[in-house]
Amino acid sequence: MQRLAIHTITTKSWDLPTAAAKYQAAGVGGAGIWRPWLEGRPLTESRRILDDHGIQAVSLVRGGFFPYLTSTEKQSALDDNRRALDEAAAIGAPQLVLVAGAMPELPLSESRRHIEEGLAACLDHARITGVKLALEPLHPMYADCRSAVNTLGQANDLLDRLGSPPEMGLAADVYHLWWDPALEQEILRAGDRICGFHVCDWLTPTRDFLNDRGLMGEGCIDIQGIRRQVEATGFEGWIEVEIFSDRWWSHDPDDYLQQILNAYQKHV
Amino acid sequence: MQRLAIHTITTKSWDLPTAAAKYQAAGVGGAGIWRPWLEGRPLTESRRILDDHGIQAVSLVRGGFFPYLTSTEKQSALDDNRRALDEAAAIGAPQLVLVAGAMPELPLSESRRHIEEGLAACLDHARITGVKLALEPLHPMYADCRSAVNTLGQANDLLDRLGSPPEMGLAADVYHLWWDPALEQEILRAGDRICGFHVCDWLTPTRDFLNDRGLMGEGCIDIQGIRRQVEATGFEGWIEVEIFSDRWWSHDPDDYLQQILNAYQKHV
Repeated sequence: MQRLAIHTITTKSWDLPTAAAKYQAAGVGGAGIWRPWLEGRPLTESRRILDDHGIQAVSLVRGGFFPYLTSTEKQSALDDNRRALDEAAAIGAPQLVLVAGAMPELPLSESRRHIEEGLAACLDHARITGVKLALEPLHPMYADCRSAVNTLGQANDLLDRLGSPPEMGLAADVYHLWWDPALEQEILRAGDRICGFHVCDWLTPTRDFLNDRGLMGEGCIDIQGIRRQVEATGFEGWIEVEIFSDRWWSHDPDDYLQQILNAYQKHV
Repeated sequence: MQRLAIHTITTKSWDLPTAAAKYQAAGVGGAGIWRPWLEGRPLTESRRILDDHGIQAVSLVRGGFFPYLTSTEKQSALDDNRRALDEAAAIGAPQLVLVAGAMPELPLSESRRHIEEGLAACLDHARITGVKLALEPLHPMYADCRSAVNTLGQANDLLDRLGSPPEMGLAADVYHLWWDPALEQEILRAGDRICGFHVCDWLTPTRDFLNDRGLMGEGCIDIQGIRRQVEATGFEGWIEVEIFSDRWWSHDPDDYLQQILNAYQKHV
């Protein structure tokens, strides 16, 4: 239980003060903070809310989205990522989770080139802030418009090409990676690059491309098996529950939080 | 145009005699025959219908679905695949397209073992019938319940392990493979294993996991680029248009056929 963290998007109806209070009351000590949860108040106040409830900001979610059509868009993406690194530092989050981005208007190879260049351009600011850039490979079904980085192997190749900078790590989400026949070997290869581990489940059938994830145990992902592989690399960090689900979002949030705790203990 | 083939599921409202007549009138010489289109008449009559309209059965679609929970299901899958090989031979189709199968109740590794064993068990009958088993890797979003073979690399590995039997080939569908960063190298590696090439497009957004494919040119897949890579291996076979689309299925089918021809000439 002391490694359980919850992404604020998981309990979407709660604002930051409510989520912090509810997590604390449930004995949850970590949270993945989505950027919209920081809006409307100074960063120092968000930090104080977390501190007051004994909640560690495990990650700030999310930066990335590097591909662009114009030089204005390119600059705006870099600016936004640097701002996100500042925000992460301000709330004490050790990592910024990156969704690489993709644009259907661009050849996939071009999106991938933009991503690599964008990451390289953010390294200095990551070093200055002390916040790690945690690249999260996304499921191939998002390759058109969300992420052109779609396997852990591809992310490992990318980090190799960048020279394995210490400012970068990898966020491994079972939802995106579970199907991959090369998963075990790529987790091994990633080794201590893995700085984030996200859990949820894959439902059969899945009715929506974005918002129909399952609570752990509701689907077919071998979460415990993947966790063992990740921990075999030495990973001892937080285990982050990140569930987008219209179904769960319409459920009573207090009961949902209790079910998350139960599912975590039983299926993670 | 002389390499264009259309899967009967693409023009779903037309039965076999209608599809054969419409394809012939449009100058289309090949068809991927889905098994339901053979029901209700003797195989010899289906063959005669195709022959009378100068339509070559390019492929029979589909066999596979090897994973099982009981020994009865196991036997039934093998029986059905052998029957499908017989049907393919009867209508003159040189290959049976295989969707490998997957079951959310099984560990992925177990589904994959069943698939490998099932394929091995069908080789003899493939040799006897002279029909090739064309394994089609399916998009990772189908790994839960349709296919545990999800990349061309994985299919190449599988064929390696089976000893590259001449009774087996690979069906490469751009919809399933386009996102893969290893695609070009795995097409090269597949070489003359590629015995089928299927085209359609990936829409942004895609609204349904199964039936929201695009007509070529409507989406973001670099179909011409992938075709060049496939043809660089020596592939000179049919190019099969396979589109599952509630949207197109509700369109006037004669106009749709004309749009398929236009899209094929412009975007394939």
